[in-house]
Amino acid sequence: MISVWQAPSAGAPLECGQRPAPEPAADELVLEVMHCGLCHSDLSMIGNHWGVSRYPLVPGHEVIGRVTAVGEGVDPGLIGDVRGLGWISGSCNHCSLCLGGDQNLCTSLEATIVGRQGGFASHVVARQDWAIPLPPGLDPADAGPLFCGGITVFAPLVDEAVSPTAHVAVVGIGGLGHIALQFARAWGCEVTAITTNLAKAEQARRFGAHHVEELEMLPDLQSRFDLVINTVNHPLDWSAVMASLRPRGRLHQLGAVLEPIQVGAFDLIPARRSITGSPTSSPASLQKMVEFCVRHNILPLVEHLPMDQVNVAIQRLAKGDVRYRFVLDA
Amino acid sequence: MISVWQAPSAGAPLECGQRPAPEPAADELVLEVMHCGLCHSDLSMIGNHWGVSRYPLVPGHEVIGRVTAVGEGVDPGLIGDVRGLGWISGSCNHCSLCLGGDQNLCTSLEATIVGRQGGFASHVVARQDWAIPLPPGLDPADAGPLFCGGITVFAPLVDEAVSPTAHVAVVGIGGLGHIALQFARAWGCEVTAITTNLAKAEQARRFGAHHVEELEMLPDLQSRFDLVINTVNHPLDWSAVMASLRPRGRLHQLGAVLEPIQVGAFDLIPARRSITGSPTSSPASLQKMVEFCVRHNILPLVEHLPMDQVNVAIQRLAKGDVRYRFVLDA
Repeated sequence: MISVWQAPSAGAPLECGQRPAPEPAADELVLEVMHCGLCHSDLSMIGNHWGVSRYPLVPGHEVIGRVTAVGEGVDPGLIGDVRGLGWISGSCNHCSLCLGGDQNLCTSLEATIVGRQGGFASHVVARQDWAIPLPPGLDPADAGPLFCGGITVFAPLVDEAVSPTAHVAVVGIGGLGHIALQFARAWGCEVTAITTNLAKAEQARRFGAHHVEELEMLPDLQSRFDLVINTVNHPLDWSAVMASLRPRGRLHQLGAVLEPIQVGAFDLIPARRSITGSPTSSPASLQKMVEFCVRHNILPLVEHLPMDQVNVAIQRLAKGDVRYRFVLDA
Repeated sequence: MISVWQAPSAGAPLECGQRPAPEPAADELVLEVMHCGLCHSDLSMIGNHWGVSRYPLVPGHEVIGRVTAVGEGVDPGLIGDVRGLGWISGSCNHCSLCLGGDQNLCTSLEATIVGRQGGFASHVVARQDWAIPLPPGLDPADAGPLFCGGITVFAPLVDEAVSPTAHVAVVGIGGLGHIALQFARAWGCEVTAITTNLAKAEQARRFGAHHVEELEMLPDLQSRFDLVINTVNHPLDWSAVMASLRPRGRLHQLGAVLEPIQVGAFDLIPARRSITGSPTSSPASLQKMVEFCVRHNILPLVEHLPMDQVNVAIQRLAKGDVRYRFVLDA
């Protein structure tokens, strides 16, 4: 048997339970969970805000774990390896998207906590290619949030081939934004942190921001950025965001704002501006990310709690009371 | 003296007038107008719909003309050359955008009919690099609309490096759309025309569409296109447009719709879709376009009228009564 922390129904606190030990199928491996980060989308899934939750629901998708068993076709020599697992646990590997390296866009992908048991548990199962080897020098205790929060903000840089000459703004200095600042700085860019909370200014500078601006001052920042990475999930003054972009500038939307994003044709056409978005990324980009993190000494800033305090972490995250990410330790 | 067709005030019919013959400044040349296409943005400028018109206003920015005089620094050997001139007549050529080949994004660019005298005239002045040489094999009588309508729809292909393997939809089969179909077909793409008027279906197929669909059927076309080029300037069912895109698909907005474009974060994020827009293009892309037109026998389908019937053309275009572009002949 394995132990899990599960929500019995929408919005309910997690309860500790037992399940039969998983048998890895072909191409799968089992990770014994060492650490698991807590992400805002865990809260959305617990609350069924996206309408795709199934209960009992075991959240947790920023897993660091040790391989304890492997399925058919997986090298048994991997047993004992430490690996990271994020939002996605499997893809078909045979459709044109998978074959083209866009496994994260596979239409039959398996999301770790959608219809599956996530990482707030003693063990979790994944396809081998989605359990990313941790390179030497990456601290397993703090690395978990890289595999969802981290890759989410690494994707707009690596997958869109952003130039290190770019001026990059990061809107929202939270779980995602504080990693985005580190990535953009190490990428070689000019980095501006945009926040509603200037109390975070000093820390934002330590994460790599050259400049810190208040969100309400955005209308004053005309034609400043080549890339705005927006991690905020509530509506912004979209005209001001677009006007803050230079010619050929791009808004990359990551925050799952539920209200429509409203932009004018003239925000796009005359200066050739654009809007993009992305969900996590591919195994290849995950591998590049962890290598980049080691080279540049990039890690999430986390607060550790023991796994049995997961409900405390959930309550505090819901209030925004964390700098900047919780990691639950097994 | 030269003759011009000018609107004395917002929305007024054009009147024939006289002006002193222009003296080309350094880097400029004078074109004697042979033909000039009529574009929807001429109507917008005559009516001051964008608030940037100055009167008397001489519209016309799809010019084919013969060089009759050159300014300092321009090779006098160009006199007699036939050239095409579009929305832009000049750029600073010294800012980083110009130096980088994005002259069409120059912040001090000179638009042919904004604060300048356009092509419904006997002569018009332009910077030499914006008056594009017509290659042998391109019929000057019909080529005018390439220099605004044509380049506007060529830009989303050439400037975004669209793959010939892409599935491309063109929404709106009018002055822009009928050229877009030809470009996309010659580009090697799978081409779908989307129209409110199925009476245009047969002609759309002749322009290159493999498929013709009614606009109201768009919600049935899920995950079909890598690129949707939208030439329509009124609001669409934006959710349906976004849902018609494949993973990594892109909506390219060209229609100057005045109401905000509304898209959901979930239209962008999960499948990595995007929205772009663009205004005309650079001299280098204009040169590539005319070469491409000759190689693939691409021309606008135009109706010719003599220049002194320009008001008839304006009235008919305002009613949509043209297949597909008017060209006024000197």
